[in-house]
Amino acid sequence: MSKQIPEVPYKTYLTEDELPKAWYNLRADMKSKPAPLLNPATKQPMTAAELEAVFCSELVSQELDNDTALIPIPGEILDFYKMYRPSPLVRAYFLEKALDTPAKIYYKFEGNNTSGSHKLNSAIAQAYYAKKQGLKGVTTETGAGQWGTALSMACAYVGLDCRVYMVKISYEQKPFRREVMRVYGASVTPSPSMETAVGRAILAAHPGTGGSLGCAISEAVEDAVSHEGYRYVLGSVLNQVLLHQSVLGLEAKAALDKLGVKPDVIIGCAGGGSNLGGLIAPFMGEKLRGEADYRFLAVEPASCPSLTRGRFAYDFCDTGHVCPLAKMYTLGSDFIPSPNHAGGLRYHGMSPVLSELRHQGLLEARAYEQTSVFAAAELFARAEGTLPAPESSHAIKGAIDEALRCRETGEEKTILFGLTGTGYFDLKAYEQFHSGTMTDFIPDDAALEAGFASLP
Amino acid sequence: MSKQIPEVPYKTYLTEDELPKAWYNLRADMKSKPAPLLNPATKQPMTAAELEAVFCSELVSQELDNDTALIPIPGEILDFYKMYRPSPLVRAYFLEKALDTPAKIYYKFEGNNTSGSHKLNSAIAQAYYAKKQGLKGVTTETGAGQWGTALSMACAYVGLDCRVYMVKISYEQKPFRREVMRVYGASVTPSPSMETAVGRAILAAHPGTGGSLGCAISEAVEDAVSHEGYRYVLGSVLNQVLLHQSVLGLEAKAALDKLGVKPDVIIGCAGGGSNLGGLIAPFMGEKLRGEADYRFLAVEPASCPSLTRGRFAYDFCDTGHVCPLAKMYTLGSDFIPSPNHAGGLRYHGMSPVLSELRHQGLLEARAYEQTSVFAAAELFARAEGTLPAPESSHAIKGAIDEALRCRETGEEKTILFGLTGTGYFDLKAYEQFHSGTMTDFIPDDAALEAGFASLP
Repeated sequence: MSKQIPEVPYKTYLTEDELPKAWYNLRADMKSKPAPLLNPATKQPMTAAELEAVFCSELVSQELDNDTALIPIPGEILDFYKMYRPSPLVRAYFLEKALDTPAKIYYKFEGNNTSGSHKLNSAIAQAYYAKKQGLKGVTTETGAGQWGTALSMACAYVGLDCRVYMVKISYEQKPFRREVMRVYGASVTPSPSMETAVGRAILAAHPGTGGSLGCAISEAVEDAVSHEGYRYVLGSVLNQVLLHQSVLGLEAKAALDKLGVKPDVIIGCAGGGSNLGGLIAPFMGEKLRGEADYRFLAVEPASCPSLTRGRFAYDFCDTGHVCPLAKMYTLGSDFIPSPNHAGGLRYHGMSPVLSELRHQGLLEARAYEQTSVFAAAELFARAEGTLPAPESSHAIKGAIDEALRCRETGEEKTILFGLTGTGYFDLKAYEQFHSGTMTDFIPDDAALEAGFASLP
Repeated sequence: MSKQIPEVPYKTYLTEDELPKAWYNLRADMKSKPAPLLNPATKQPMTAAELEAVFCSELVSQELDNDTALIPIPGEILDFYKMYRPSPLVRAYFLEKALDTPAKIYYKFEGNNTSGSHKLNSAIAQAYYAKKQGLKGVTTETGAGQWGTALSMACAYVGLDCRVYMVKISYEQKPFRREVMRVYGASVTPSPSMETAVGRAILAAHPGTGGSLGCAISEAVEDAVSHEGYRYVLGSVLNQVLLHQSVLGLEAKAALDKLGVKPDVIIGCAGGGSNLGGLIAPFMGEKLRGEADYRFLAVEPASCPSLTRGRFAYDFCDTGHVCPLAKMYTLGSDFIPSPNHAGGLRYHGMSPVLSELRHQGLLEARAYEQTSVFAAAELFARAEGTLPAPESSHAIKGAIDEALRCRETGEEKTILFGLTGTGYFDLKAYEQFHSGTMTDFIPDDAALEAGFASLP
């Protein structure tokens, strides 16, 4: 309990005037661009017209734009951002002390909004452009429910119908998440459902299935394309989502610049890549332009190791194979993590932008088993107060390991990591961790081969 | 979706340097002081020595001090405050627009910490002084779990054992709340329990009881006084708690002063009085000193209407009658709100400080039925983004009604209310509201008389 004498404030907030006015499109600075989405039937790059059957027009244009570095944020979206942004950049003095490390640890905390994560940054953009195009509503899928909650909030704000397909096992295990979405007026359907042809087919083949994210995506896409005035929206993986999420990286960088601090390593958890892609964007841009150097580290679960053990290949984005093909690190669209995996980040693939960066050797990756991730989460909670989401806790674990290495070497490295969200709806998993019923699961080579067999 | 042109920022944060360095003790400016606590056996004012059997010494001194206006906040507590304070003062532009009101609405938001409420402000103070005194641990009770969570976090930080008696029905209905406390290392016991004599007696008399806050208080006090090195701590009602909570009022006032804004009316929800007492303190101080004038409004549930229908009398603070007597507005220590009451704020009495202010005519009070409170909560969530706690939503309902009155009269009043916390752990109640199974319950005169019959 000794008195801290802070070098910098515990929390740094930008003022509302300092909020980024434009998103940063990292693709503009990439010499080798991420591979285009392919039409699953023709294997040709998806055209804007083809994509507009699924996505609204402005988002298609953002999806395909590999050249424009700065894309202005519309005023209405900036207004919405002001409800919960700027988010704090926190100096983790208490965690540093608990670790007895010379490292300086900062985290960008995105959990201070009701959706409990960074997902709102893209949800409002996608809802806004859909409304502007005169659409009636949007459909989407959600797993643990953070994206569905974020989209529900954004749709309530702009006045748009919101239909969420929620992975059935999450729907049943997380009734409160589903209830939050209802507070914001969304309809929530457990997936697979009888509402869609793909859902009915999956139910016929696997009557007792608890569903999967890939299956929920297929249902949401089918719902959108078969109803007039509806489009599908997605909370991760896509280029447009990483573009919107750049707001969090831009804020983090602006706050660090204000403090005169340059991070040595930037760490984020990686599922589909939305948070990591947004966090690293402005720093990676500097690196690509030769203006500065940083290390970048993606942390993923050992039970769903797309970046560390996946293949860099074109693959389906969804189980039902109704979506375009994306070139990415993937475990195969049939890969489903062990049911005992409670740590989130369970998508079989990874954002094409991040996959390309990884392929170029610009992004390190590391996988952790979930019990070590929850141990890191608890250490963090007791030191820093905030109860982290299991997803975010992968980044915490990565940051702690970097800081402990500094304790060994004596190096005073500066670490920045993304604390994407809070764990209020993940307490079942914390309970498993405390009661000792949580187990680890690392897929063996045979399990991976079975997933790769579903590659096109 | 029109563009807002803000007069003031959406959110105003003080800097860490501007955090209050001292708590403000409103009692110092009260001409007629709140009545002292009485020994239940002798009916004489409790002495410091008597109180020190239950509470730690520094807190006893704060409890009894009616004269010192400013009590310095120790540096270690200030450090802890910096984990989650200053909290934002928010201009509710989106709510104003939804209500189409000329009123200007501000709220002080205390939910951006893992305990999800303002309770942490006093929890850390109480844990700190207990640790400083060399105690081993503290005991407490919790109902919905906000106070227990806050105390667990504070005890984890200072390194103190924490034993929480949780009202049994909440323990069973809110397993996740209990799990959060375990993340922070607390032990959580459903009350009534077999751990204490009072618990065993209550279980013998009422074998199937779901427990009550009054009963859990009795158990926690007995546990503390019967174990060496333990003391009891309480999250509301007491003078010391209102003192610690003054930090939120002081911050709110400092932020408003920075903006050059003077509120006309200040509104808070009222259960035991901790939030309301803290929020109004510096404003009421100005009023008592004749420096400024404000209206103050306490909002309580119609099903537990201590301020609007209770008696101003000495009463027991707990069901087991092991605690001192306090002079307060009370419904009688045997009064238990209808089991269908989901809106929180279910304590039978009210802080002696607030009770005295109410008795002097300085504090207005209003009671609302819970369905109207949840309707206000949902309107707020959709407009302002944040999902409010049911408790806080009483203040929201009060603020909305004031703002709607302004729409009728055309007055541009400035309203400040306390948004004490978030509703992530109250989604069962939201579900009842949405499904139409939530009912209202106003105790009839006979029910109140039955409660008053338990007055000493």
